[in-house]
Amino acid sequence: MDKYEITRIYSEKVEVVVDLIAQEVPLSIRVNDDELVTLLASPDHCIELAVGLLYSSGFISSFSDIEEIDVDKQGTIVSICLKNRQLRKDVEYRALLTSGCGRGTLFLQAGEISRRSKIKSEIVLHRNRIFELMVDFQSRSTGYKQTGGIHSAALASSSGIHCVYEDIGRHNAIDKILGYVVMHEIDVQDKFILTSGRISSEIVLKLNRTDLGLIVSRSAPTNQAINYARGTGISLIGFVRGRRMNVYYLNEQVCQIL
Amino acid sequence: MDKYEITRIYSEKVEVVVDLIAQEVPLSIRVNDDELVTLLASPDHCIELAVGLLYSSGFISSFSDIEEIDVDKQGTIVSICLKNRQLRKDVEYRALLTSGCGRGTLFLQAGEISRRSKIKSEIVLHRNRIFELMVDFQSRSTGYKQTGGIHSAALASSSGIHCVYEDIGRHNAIDKILGYVVMHEIDVQDKFILTSGRISSEIVLKLNRTDLGLIVSRSAPTNQAINYARGTGISLIGFVRGRRMNVYYLNEQVCQIL
Repeated sequence: MDKYEITRIYSEKVEVVVDLIAQEVPLSIRVNDDELVTLLASPDHCIELAVGLLYSSGFISSFSDIEEIDVDKQGTIVSICLKNRQLRKDVEYRALLTSGCGRGTLFLQAGEISRRSKIKSEIVLHRNRIFELMVDFQSRSTGYKQTGGIHSAALASSSGIHCVYEDIGRHNAIDKILGYVVMHEIDVQDKFILTSGRISSEIVLKLNRTDLGLIVSRSAPTNQAINYARGTGISLIGFVRGRRMNVYYLNEQVCQIL
Repeated sequence: MDKYEITRIYSEKVEVVVDLIAQEVPLSIRVNDDELVTLLASPDHCIELAVGLLYSSGFISSFSDIEEIDVDKQGTIVSICLKNRQLRKDVEYRALLTSGCGRGTLFLQAGEISRRSKIKSEIVLHRNRIFELMVDFQSRSTGYKQTGGIHSAALASSSGIHCVYEDIGRHNAIDKILGYVVMHEIDVQDKFILTSGRISSEIVLKLNRTDLGLIVSRSAPTNQAINYARGTGISLIGFVRGRRMNVYYLNEQVCQIL
């Protein structure tokens, strides 16, 4: 957070106050000495973000695909050296370039949207547990509470929240979670994602490369996100507010809401 | 809006309801027969979006720079033919490719951030008028009210709101406004932008190519947005909620809040 002196204007008074503002940095991700993409992101946990982006984009399938990670002193360039020096040929390079900003689906036709592998999730959740977890999640989203300008995402199971990451970009917050999962080889069979952000198609496509089979958001999805959820078998819950939520798609073979 | 049958779960009951969902389409913008960029966007007003993006990115300086605009039947490809068949050389091509998703500032160093031309704004606004306009703006944001998943932006002056555009992308909503301004040759001297979305650096940089000198948001800015506002002289107000707002930067030579 940065501190800025700002003027707060009310109908009846004006005061100069110090306000906490979310930081934004350009983060360049280099793979095998080539710049792959530059994102605007929050300055923390840039390694998780870079690893998660490579994972959710299909460049790596596990942390062991990475030989070396370096971050420059300013924390704005993450250089990753892959063991396989050739980028995987089955990945659409252009698709990645548009990742992290709600684009990239152009490179997949509707007919191609199908689950890349069998979903390994076995999630059994009581509805009230989801409401409780969302309250806990919001209470842990400290960056949002301080600045009002940050998205958050969490890895959770019915037993509780495992980690929370925040970022000015809603895609980035999800990628940080995925980076954490890959780096720590987390078993995600009973786990799912909580997020503050809206669910666009690309968020669903990111999860389609993982073993995560459920995403729960405080916000709304787009129509394409619902279509892709149905096509890939990823369960999609949104608009969790108070004691209410919308189930946009539930894959009952892997996810049960009691 | 699309209609979807969804399951709404409460603590004590479950109901199947029909919900309105924001539509998302891939929109390709082609310039002089080359694809420039593909965005995920709402399907309406794609011409305003394309023209606004070209303008805010510096490819055109007025509507007369455009010879022809075609939209395909599906409304997902906008082809624009410029009178000058060469893209302007002083525009960083790569910067545009990252536009619309909160990126692109990498191509401008902090030292380069300065006003491109003298701000022509002459805005005099009573604080209570801003509060009123924001209420009016929200009441006109019908897509958000219906789906909860859409951003909106408006062109306004002290006399009222001139137009409102909505989009699933906060950058796109701003570009639609700018497209409207360019296409209708609107005199913006007394006008400014209202937006629902967060203000990242790129939003400020978009306005820096226009004669608009004030942006007012319901949401928070990032630190770089404030830095760029101060560097370019664009006044920046955020967090307008009820009878309160935060003035992050005010260029008193062109904008007065009474």
